[in-house]
Amino acid sequence: MTANRLIYLPLGGAGEIGMNCYVYGYGPEDKERLIVVDLGVTFGDMETTPGIDLIMPDVRWLEERQDRIEAIFITHAHEDHIGALGHLWPRLRAKVYARRFTALIGRAKLEEQGQPGTIITTVEARPQVIEAGPFKVQYLPVAHSIPESAALVIDTPAGRILHSGDFKLDPTPLVGEAWRPELFAEVAAEKPVKALMCDSTNVFSTHAGRSEATLRDPIRELVQKAEGMVVATTFASNVARLVTLAEAAQSAGRSVCLMGRAMKKMVAAAVESGVLAEFPKVVAPEEAEDIPRQNLMLLVTGSQGERRAASAQLARGKYLGMEMKEGDLFLFSSRTIPGNERGVLRIVNAFSEMGVDVVDEANGLYHVSGHANRPDLELMHSIVKPGVVIPMHGEHRHLREHVKLAASKGFDGEIATNGMMLDLTGDSPEVTEYIETGRLYLDGTALIGAMDGVVRDRIRMALNGHVMITIILDENDEPLGEAWAEIMGLPETGKGARPLAETIEEELNEFLDRGGKVLSDDDKLDEAVRRVVRQVAVEEIGKKPEVTVVVSRLQAD
Amino acid sequence: MTANRLIYLPLGGAGEIGMNCYVYGYGPEDKERLIVVDLGVTFGDMETTPGIDLIMPDVRWLEERQDRIEAIFITHAHEDHIGALGHLWPRLRAKVYARRFTALIGRAKLEEQGQPGTIITTVEARPQVIEAGPFKVQYLPVAHSIPESAALVIDTPAGRILHSGDFKLDPTPLVGEAWRPELFAEVAAEKPVKALMCDSTNVFSTHAGRSEATLRDPIRELVQKAEGMVVATTFASNVARLVTLAEAAQSAGRSVCLMGRAMKKMVAAAVESGVLAEFPKVVAPEEAEDIPRQNLMLLVTGSQGERRAASAQLARGKYLGMEMKEGDLFLFSSRTIPGNERGVLRIVNAFSEMGVDVVDEANGLYHVSGHANRPDLELMHSIVKPGVVIPMHGEHRHLREHVKLAASKGFDGEIATNGMMLDLTGDSPEVTEYIETGRLYLDGTALIGAMDGVVRDRIRMALNGHVMITIILDENDEPLGEAWAEIMGLPETGKGARPLAETIEEELNEFLDRGGKVLSDDDKLDEAVRRVVRQVAVEEIGKKPEVTVVVSRLQAD
Repeated sequence: MTANRLIYLPLGGAGEIGMNCYVYGYGPEDKERLIVVDLGVTFGDMETTPGIDLIMPDVRWLEERQDRIEAIFITHAHEDHIGALGHLWPRLRAKVYARRFTALIGRAKLEEQGQPGTIITTVEARPQVIEAGPFKVQYLPVAHSIPESAALVIDTPAGRILHSGDFKLDPTPLVGEAWRPELFAEVAAEKPVKALMCDSTNVFSTHAGRSEATLRDPIRELVQKAEGMVVATTFASNVARLVTLAEAAQSAGRSVCLMGRAMKKMVAAAVESGVLAEFPKVVAPEEAEDIPRQNLMLLVTGSQGERRAASAQLARGKYLGMEMKEGDLFLFSSRTIPGNERGVLRIVNAFSEMGVDVVDEANGLYHVSGHANRPDLELMHSIVKPGVVIPMHGEHRHLREHVKLAASKGFDGEIATNGMMLDLTGDSPEVTEYIETGRLYLDGTALIGAMDGVVRDRIRMALNGHVMITIILDENDEPLGEAWAEIMGLPETGKGARPLAETIEEELNEFLDRGGKVLSDDDKLDEAVRRVVRQVAVEEIGKKPEVTVVVSRLQAD
Repeated sequence: MTANRLIYLPLGGAGEIGMNCYVYGYGPEDKERLIVVDLGVTFGDMETTPGIDLIMPDVRWLEERQDRIEAIFITHAHEDHIGALGHLWPRLRAKVYARRFTALIGRAKLEEQGQPGTIITTVEARPQVIEAGPFKVQYLPVAHSIPESAALVIDTPAGRILHSGDFKLDPTPLVGEAWRPELFAEVAAEKPVKALMCDSTNVFSTHAGRSEATLRDPIRELVQKAEGMVVATTFASNVARLVTLAEAAQSAGRSVCLMGRAMKKMVAAAVESGVLAEFPKVVAPEEAEDIPRQNLMLLVTGSQGERRAASAQLARGKYLGMEMKEGDLFLFSSRTIPGNERGVLRIVNAFSEMGVDVVDEANGLYHVSGHANRPDLELMHSIVKPGVVIPMHGEHRHLREHVKLAASKGFDGEIATNGMMLDLTGDSPEVTEYIETGRLYLDGTALIGAMDGVVRDRIRMALNGHVMITIILDENDEPLGEAWAEIMGLPETGKGARPLAETIEEELNEFLDRGGKVLSDDDKLDEAVRRVVRQVAVEEIGKKPEVTVVVSRLQAD
C-alpha cells in the first residue's frame, strides 16, 4: 500500500502579487485528490505584455488531473482571486464554493463569460464544513478591503492547514466582519495548525495596520471644507470606503453620484448579499449635472490611472456630462500600485492644469491598506502557532522577508514559489517536485500561452518597426515587376531625406537583378532579402527592423 | 522706434521633469537676441515611446531664428540638461558655454556624435561675466548631485534674472561647491532680481533637505557590518556619492571596483577637471574576480533598473566575471524615479531569489536628493526676494504648488509651461504668445517628430498585432493565385483551433472570387480587404489587428 501524502502547490501568487491559485492534494503519490484555492488574474502592461487584457495562471497541471479535482474554493471577490474563474472553469469543471457576496460577484462574472452561475455554491462561514474528498474546509471570516473575505481552515488526514487568504487585523472595518483574534485562537486550540499559508503583501510595512474606521473623521473633515465639487476614487470593491466617502458627502449636504460600472455592481452586490443594509442615497449622472457643484460628490473608478476609467476620462475632459473645474477637489482614497505611477501622475497633472486640487494618501489620512502589516503578521503567527509558516501572496522579496520575520520569533518558514510542490506530510515541509508553470494571456477572446511568441513579436515590432517585402517571381525564378516595400512604425526617410521604402526597394531590385540560384530557394531568398533590408535600414536610420517577406511564385497557366 | 522687451520661453522642462531647455530674449518684438539655457533629453519608455532611445525638445522655433541666437549656456552635466547638445547643436550653431567639469563631459558627448568638442568654451564662476549680445551672464556655484552645478545670473537691460538651475542647499556636499547663502544675498543686493526661474522638483518634500555628508556614517556602518560582497549603485554622475561609497569600502578593508562605462567616465572627468583631487584606488574587474568577496565592493550603474546596466546584468547572472551570491549585500544608494519601479523591483526580486540582501533608501539613511525641498525653496525665495517666482523643472503639479508656496510668503508667482512665452519687461509678467512646441525622438540614428505617427503605429502594432495581405491581380483585375496572409503578433489559431491566417485567406479568396468593380479600384480594394480581415479577426480572436494590404497588378509584357 502506498503511503498517503499531503501536498501544496502554488500555481500563481507565490513570487508575484496577483493571479492567486494554490493547490492542495491528499492521497497516494500522483493520485492525490485535489482542491484549488482561488483562480485569480493579474493585469498586463505595455512594457511586458502589450495588447494583453488579462493574465492568469497556466493550469495545465490541473487540467491533466481534472478527474482528481474535488472542488475550487474562492476566498474573496478581488480580481486577483476570482478573475480567472470564468475563463478557466471550463478546463477544471469542479464544484466552486464561495460565501454569499463573493458568489454574487462570481456568478455575474461567469454569466458575462457565458458560463452558468450555478457552478458556484454559496456557503456559510464556520461552523459550516464543506467536505471535498479527503478535505474538510471551513470559511473563517477575516477583515480585508472587500466584504466577506475569508481564511480557510483546511482539515486533512495529515493535519490542519490554515490558508489566510488576504487579511488585515481590523477590529472596526465599518462594513463586513471584524478581525476576531479569538476565532483564530479557537481554531489553533482545536487542532494544532500544521502550516499557515500566509498573506505577505505588507511584510515591509513596519507599523501596525490601521483600521478602516480611522479614515472616517479625516475624510469627513476634508469634504466638509471643500468648496467646489468633490470627486473621490477608490477600488470599487472597497465597499466600506465607498460608504465612508458617501456618508462624508451626506453630512456635508452633498448628493452622491456613483460613476463607473464596477462601482454600481459592487454596491448592488453588497446590498443584495446583506453585507450592507443600505447604501446612502445616490443620484444618477443625468441628475448630477443639475446639482450645484458645491453640493455634489462623485465617486469614480480609476484609482490606478486606468485609461478608460472615470477618473482618466475626467482628466481628459467630460465624462457622462460632468467636468472638473478650478476649485474642485479630487481625492485619491487609494494607494498607487507600483508600476501604475505614470498613469496616476498623468491624471494628477491634468487636474493641476485645470486648477483642481488633488489630495492623495501621502499623509496617511485618506487611505489604509487591506493587508496585514509586519507587526500584524507577527501577531497572527503567535496566535496560530503553526508548525511552519509558508508565505504566499507576495513577490519573492516579500516571501523571503516573511520567512525571516517568522524565524525571528522562532517559527519555521519555507519559501514555495509558483511551481514548487511541497510535501507537508512529515514534520517539516520538503520540496518534492518542480512543476513547469506559466501564464496564460487573454488576448481579445483568445487564451494564449505566455511563451507562444505572440507578445514577443509585438514587443519586437514596437521596438524595431516592421518592414514588409513583396516579391513576385515567374516560373523561371525571374522577378515579375519590382520588389515592393511597406514600412510601418519606422521613420519615413533616412539619410539625406531619402524615402526609406524607396531606398529599400532600390537595393532589393539590384539584388533581384543579380539573379542566381538564391531566387529558386524560398528559405535562402527569404534570408537574403531580410539581410538586404536590415543592411539598408541600419545604414539609413540606424535600426534593424522586423522584416516579413512574401515571395509569390506565379506558374504559367 | 520699437520698444525692447525681455522674453522668457521654456521649450522643455516646464511641465515635465526632463529635457530642460529655456530661452531668454531681449530686443524689439520678433527681433529679440536670444540665449538658450540647457539642451537636455528625457528617456523613452515602452508605454508611450517604444523603441525610442532619447527624447528632446523640438527646437524648431529656435532653428527658424538661428541667426538671433547669441549663445547656449549649460548649467550642469546631467543628461536632462546637456544630453541633447550633440544632437541639436547642428540646428542651432551657437557658441556653447559651460564650466570645466560640464565642458569635459559635454565635449566627450559631442565627439561621440561626430561634433567638434571645441564648440564648448570653458568658463569660470562669478565674477567672470560672459557677454552674449544684450545679456551678461555669470555662473553662480550651487550644490547639486553632480559637481559644478550652477545657477545663472542673467543681466539684461530690462533687469536681472536668476535662473536657479538644479540646486540644493547643501553646506557640506563633500565633493564640489557648497551652498553659500551669502553669494545669493550678494547677487540680490547688487541689483534687484526681477524674476527667479526656480527648480521645483522637490516642492512636495516637506522636510528640509539633508546634506550629502549625513550619509557618510550610515553607509560606512552598513558596509562595515556586511559579511559577503557589497555592491552599491547610484547615478554615475553623483561623484560625491561614489567617493562616500568608495571610502566606506576602504575603511572596511575592501577593494573597490567600478563597473559600467558611465562611472569610469564621470570619475575621470572629476579628476581631470580638478573637482576631485583623486578618487580612492580602484581595481579592474579582472582583478576583482580574485579578491575574496568579503574584501570587495562593486560600484555599479543601473540604479533605475535599466535593462542593460550592470545591476540588471548582475541580477540576471554574471557580469564581467562577477556574480552575486547568498549573503551578499546590494545597496540602492538612490531613489527610484516614478515609472521605473517595475524595473527596479525586478532586480530586487532576482537578488532575493539569490539570497542577496537588498537595502534601499526607504529609511532615508543611504540616499539624499539633489534638489531643494519645500523649506529650502522658501529660504531661497526669501534670500533672493525676486519680483516674481517662475517655477521650472517640474511637472504641472510641481509648478502649481511652487507658485502656491511663493504666494504663501507674499511672492508673486507665474506658471509658464513649455511653449508659453512670457514678456518680463513690465512689473509683472504677461503671457504674450503660445509657441507650438513638441518633442523630437531619436530613433536609431533618425530624429523624428513626436507627431510623425511612427510611434503611434508601433503602439498600434504592439496592442493589436499586424496582418499583411498580398494579392496579385492580372491586367483584367482577375486574381492571379490566391490571397496570402501573414500574421505577426497575433494568436496562431482562432475558434475551434483553426489557423487564423488560413481562415483569413479563405474569406479573402471568397471575396476575390466574387469579383466586381471593387477589384479595379486600388483604394476601394484596400479598404474592402481590410474590412474582411478585421471581421474575420474579430470573429476568430476578438481583436481588430493592424492591416497592411499589398496589391500587385501585373501587366502583360
